[in-house]
Amino acid sequence: LSHLISNMKITTFVQHDFVNPDDLSGQAAVVIDTFRATTTMTTALQNGAACMIPVMHVKDALAIKAQDSDVLLGGERRTQKIDGFDFGNSPLEYTAQAVGGRRVVMSTTNGTKAVMAAKKAATIMLGCLNNASAVAEKLAKLQLDVTLLCAGTVGRLSMEDLLTAGMIIAHLQQICDVTLCDTSITARDMYIMHQSDINGVLKNTAHYNTMLKNDLAGDIAFCMQTDICSTVPVFDGTGFVKK
Amino acid sequence: LSHLISNMKITTFVQHDFVNPDDLSGQAAVVIDTFRATTTMTTALQNGAACMIPVMHVKDALAIKAQDSDVLLGGERRTQKIDGFDFGNSPLEYTAQAVGGRRVVMSTTNGTKAVMAAKKAATIMLGCLNNASAVAEKLAKLQLDVTLLCAGTVGRLSMEDLLTAGMIIAHLQQICDVTLCDTSITARDMYIMHQSDINGVLKNTAHYNTMLKNDLAGDIAFCMQTDICSTVPVFDGTGFVKK
Repeated sequence: LSHLISNMKITTFVQHDFVNPDDLSGQAAVVIDTFRATTTMTTALQNGAACMIPVMHVKDALAIKAQDSDVLLGGERRTQKIDGFDFGNSPLEYTAQAVGGRRVVMSTTNGTKAVMAAKKAATIMLGCLNNASAVAEKLAKLQLDVTLLCAGTVGRLSMEDLLTAGMIIAHLQQICDVTLCDTSITARDMYIMHQSDINGVLKNTAHYNTMLKNDLAGDIAFCMQTDICSTVPVFDGTGFVKK
Repeated sequence: LSHLISNMKITTFVQHDFVNPDDLSGQAAVVIDTFRATTTMTTALQNGAACMIPVMHVKDALAIKAQDSDVLLGGERRTQKIDGFDFGNSPLEYTAQAVGGRRVVMSTTNGTKAVMAAKKAATIMLGCLNNASAVAEKLAKLQLDVTLLCAGTVGRLSMEDLLTAGMIIAHLQQICDVTLCDTSITARDMYIMHQSDINGVLKNTAHYNTMLKNDLAGDIAFCMQTDICSTVPVFDGTGFVKK
């Protein structure tokens, strides 16, 4: 108990481009890309994948594969699977049968950029609606100041990420003494206002409708589930592992 | 009625740094810096100032004064009045007696940057809590797509600006058919959630508390008043005038 910080500062960014990486030094960072990168990586680890390695470019993924033919490749460009890859970016593809015990290289531009923006943090986790309360519980144990990094969509705030940040904050403030920045207050209040009907608010938002047009209703339904798993992906220097 | 657009798109930015000026081409832009630049300029015009001219630097203000000794100078650096200027950035200073019939050059870094980010818009207005409904009524008549540009504070979302944007949107959607981006939905919902106690949410936010520490409680109280005036400052190519 001697290590408890008296007050945990929680800073939220609606889009990773706006972050100064130095500001995250010594903090616990949570990267949030609920539609779909962080939901997919959380699901894969929950289903037994050994490690999820985020990379920016397709050529980076292929370079790792050239060194280690056992890795699987996953990722998307404009919601579509990349040619020659094993998986796209749907959490539904990452079953226990498909990924159990395997290392998977994920090429998702936006999610990977958000992880890189957090590279100076003391620890980096992945958050989504599926594991929001588990993330909050882990943050409470770490007792570090927290930065929540929403990936956003094409440079803008994305509602599903804001609600995920808000759910983590709403849970955290019940178990810790917290100080919230204006964006964190906004995220928490939006979650509290809409927690009983997350689909109701998301159905009018941009990314949700882009996904619907791309026949991804199943992914939307999966990604909107709250607290269905206790896996918190944590970065180990190379990739995200279950901790 | 033949000019009515069937659906008005409302885009909100929480901070002007994130704006691509080209995206505002042909739109109606509203710059929002509720604590305090846009409240102050609205108040000055309401009190009879002839024109409010925003400039970035103190030297720009002094250059205009050198050409035209009749202009008054206003502005702030870190909440304080600038040496040699007639006014700071408090709306309480811009009385009818002080500014009636006068042109005033305003040097406010953040608010001026936000105006410059909107320079390609078809029209630029200034919004604050004091004139939010009047701004909405004017936007409804223009029937252009709308971008609401919050100035924010030191590069971050500022709650008082978000609530102002939300109040404009909440009013607009009662009189127009609108399509809202995710940030616009967030702004509107935050306003709806907090409209009955704006002080209650703002008292926990960053800029409010910085102002309190600088003995600006009177300014805070003034700036938080909703719909106390019908003046909408509109840019005429040189400065903002009452229209």
